[in-house]
Amino acid sequence: MISKRQIKIITSLHQKKYRKSTGLFVAEGKKVIQEFLNSNFELDTLFTTDESLFAFNPKVTLISEAELKKISFLKTPNKTLALFKISEVAAAETEGLIVALDAIRDPGNLGTIIRLCDWFGVKQLVCSETTVDCYNPKVIQATMGSLTRVNVLYTNLSTYLSKTNLPVFGAFMDGENVYKANLPKDGILVMGNEANGVSDEISNLITEKIAIPRFGDMQQTESLNVAMATGILLNEFKRVDF
Amino acid sequence: MISKRQIKIITSLHQKKYRKSTGLFVAEGKKVIQEFLNSNFELDTLFTTDESLFAFNPKVTLISEAELKKISFLKTPNKTLALFKISEVAAAETEGLIVALDAIRDPGNLGTIIRLCDWFGVKQLVCSETTVDCYNPKVIQATMGSLTRVNVLYTNLSTYLSKTNLPVFGAFMDGENVYKANLPKDGILVMGNEANGVSDEISNLITEKIAIPRFGDMQQTESLNVAMATGILLNEFKRVDF
Repeated sequence: MISKRQIKIITSLHQKKYRKSTGLFVAEGKKVIQEFLNSNFELDTLFTTDESLFAFNPKVTLISEAELKKISFLKTPNKTLALFKISEVAAAETEGLIVALDAIRDPGNLGTIIRLCDWFGVKQLVCSETTVDCYNPKVIQATMGSLTRVNVLYTNLSTYLSKTNLPVFGAFMDGENVYKANLPKDGILVMGNEANGVSDEISNLITEKIAIPRFGDMQQTESLNVAMATGILLNEFKRVDF
Repeated sequence: MISKRQIKIITSLHQKKYRKSTGLFVAEGKKVIQEFLNSNFELDTLFTTDESLFAFNPKVTLISEAELKKISFLKTPNKTLALFKISEVAAAETEGLIVALDAIRDPGNLGTIIRLCDWFGVKQLVCSETTVDCYNPKVIQATMGSLTRVNVLYTNLSTYLSKTNLPVFGAFMDGENVYKANLPKDGILVMGNEANGVSDEISNLITEKIAIPRFGDMQQTESLNVAMATGILLNEFKRVDF
């Protein structure tokens, strides 16, 4: 059983302001929830239609399919929905490879980039305050638990970059061929907005502009999707280790 | 004005069998349509709500917003919808880098992979008959016109691979570290199904299994999305040219 008040709270969590006021976010599906349970994130409540999961745990509530449908953000609700507590952000890493995002707006792109950081062992992601919230339900589902292993800091990106001692690389259509660039172990890689790329303000703080060469006859105005470009550039930074 | 019969035909084109029987496919939005108009694809009919495009061309039909809504496959219809004729597949390339897909099911993934082929100058994509149709409306929208520059052949992949003289590379979780592999200019790169990877039948025809190393603490069961893996591997094959 789930109360009307609970339904109201959970459905409000697609909005950032309610995630902020309650300190909670939603994760759905066994696989994603399991990854959060295995991490430092603290479970608030778990709602499930699966009786086998209802192990007299005070944090687990058995609900009906109809109730799940009311609270799920998925088109096809997946048996289990959990509320976790938003964790405090750890102090930002100051070494290693760091990814910084300038106004990434698409939740799917942010989710994919968090997964890429996890794959390539990037511990720190720094996001401009204009970047989509990493606790957005679509981001949570797209990250598949990688959020538990990547520290995501939201801050004034301009201030952050102007204070760092690390070299700052940025992806630009007209940047230097990344295959010829000297890519260090410690540094920051800045990726820009889906439509507009890196903003002028942030551009001024970039020490090296890099680009992935285009081999085909694709029009000059076309570009790779920002998540794809992030994956290819992280691969370039990391392959040097071998 | 658009007739009821036209509406019926256009809406049927989300199904492969009707695309096959009519020889037509749908492209939407000015940018995508413009790319097809600039290519070898032949326009059948263009429907638009934009009077400025209605230049007394017998192939252009002015329609209302309500009519566009009836025929569009997009959540937010974008002024113009065009029917193009499905072109005959050119003979498959036998040199250069070729990408082969074993049962890719997601239209977004296929669209992204066609775009990646375009970016990296791969002229030939060979798809198993179990791979999603490249004239699927979601694929057309995701390719953004790259389909005009990449030759896509659907065939029995097993037969195709057993006849080729090219080296056949395949992406496997337990493959050789791609950074250490010797990647030739001429060869075939096989990418497998989203859930199951490369099938056993096709596995037997692969001469070199390769993998993108994992750097972080991501669980061993996790993998990169197939389109992302394709992008990173194409980058590895092509960066050798520099």
